[in-house]
Amino acid sequence: MAGGSDELKLLGMWASPFVMRVKLALGFKGLSYEDVEEDLFGGKSELLLKSNPVHKKVPVLLHNGKPVCESQIIVQYIDEAFAGTGPLLLPSDPYERAIARFWGAYIDDKLLASFLQSAKGKTEEEKAEGLKQTLVAVENMEGAFKEISKGKPFFGGDTVGYLDVTLGALVSWIHAAEKIYGMRLFDATRSPLLNAWLEQFGALDVAKAALADVDRLVEYAKKRQADQAAAEASSNN
Amino acid sequence: MAGGSDELKLLGMWASPFVMRVKLALGFKGLSYEDVEEDLFGGKSELLLKSNPVHKKVPVLLHNGKPVCESQIIVQYIDEAFAGTGPLLLPSDPYERAIARFWGAYIDDKLLASFLQSAKGKTEEEKAEGLKQTLVAVENMEGAFKEISKGKPFFGGDTVGYLDVTLGALVSWIHAAEKIYGMRLFDATRSPLLNAWLEQFGALDVAKAALADVDRLVEYAKKRQADQAAAEASSNN
Repeated sequence: MAGGSDELKLLGMWASPFVMRVKLALGFKGLSYEDVEEDLFGGKSELLLKSNPVHKKVPVLLHNGKPVCESQIIVQYIDEAFAGTGPLLLPSDPYERAIARFWGAYIDDKLLASFLQSAKGKTEEEKAEGLKQTLVAVENMEGAFKEISKGKPFFGGDTVGYLDVTLGALVSWIHAAEKIYGMRLFDATRSPLLNAWLEQFGALDVAKAALADVDRLVEYAKKRQADQAAAEASSNN
Repeated sequence: MAGGSDELKLLGMWASPFVMRVKLALGFKGLSYEDVEEDLFGGKSELLLKSNPVHKKVPVLLHNGKPVCESQIIVQYIDEAFAGTGPLLLPSDPYERAIARFWGAYIDDKLLASFLQSAKGKTEEEKAEGLKQTLVAVENMEGAFKEISKGKPFFGGDTVGYLDVTLGALVSWIHAAEKIYGMRLFDATRSPLLNAWLEQFGALDVAKAALADVDRLVEYAKKRQADQAAAEASSNN
């Protein structure tokens, strides 16, 4: 931990990609923290409700008791508050930083949103539109990776940076979705660079420690689907 | 302009609150720029399509020819790239910066989104839900203003900061919406602090120069509504 006086506590939930994102950032910065697992379905803790009264969501990072919410904001906070510890995740050049923030927003607002819609859309039409948007988003991300990485293995170059952490948060779910829905988000034909990135990022020690086990995610997703189907069936009675 | 070699060009559209946001930031930083008006309905320029190929939207700020997109990302970029020019908009403390980013996201994702839904929802039910969410968002923003401004007139304290610019982008539309829909977003009863802020911010010279004329916005909104109604009527034939 950076400085003996810094206390870091993460309110999270093991299957959340947004929580994994924060764990990745803490891991790459080499910061140790207390990992507090919230029971999102059974009942959220008083600490979570008090720390994030607006959204009432994980992740929340408590730094010496002061809460920071929203995963990408937390990652930027970690990078700035612990600038002297471990690697810098965001580029130091303001223009490159703007580009990183642009694609960071794109990952959640477009790539993840359309991927979720392709898997969980309410109608077949919604799913088809989600798939169409996903393919556009993958193509755009592949282009972004090519431009930003400049032939190096990561968005950050030879080492991981902000966008590796931001996209890396989805790696376990990308593998789980392939097992559940049969759809591989990045593949060798459509997005060869991101397909290679997926393997290289997932093989890093920090990623292996921060990311959830894929089979456990598959089991979790199937149980959630069954619970939801049961709830819907009983509400239709 | 900061440094004789810096060329700033803003691709915008006078009625867009997101473009006004960038104009506010440039104004408070004391940066001069070329103001390029896009014809969003008649046909976007080649420069816009080339500069923002992903979203194809204004605003885009070109700094020595290099494009930056997305209004809040542009404001952060301006603040960082011209750190030595004019006031700093974002707080220098990392924690305060995280808080500013949190509420910045909240302004667009919740306050503005629910306000738009309350005015333009497709059904009466959608509008009612939008209004309900708007009132929650206003209450949350009022609390945020109280905590962040600490009794001073602006989010930034005695002078404007990042959140003043972010929320200030909506000021002309808040007044226009009151004239069109009869709904005042901030008022003396529900949100006395933001109601006072609205007047104080709007009276600043930079705000008067950057924000669109309210009557012109009202006329623009009414014409857009009429055009849309005509297009819908003809597509129903």
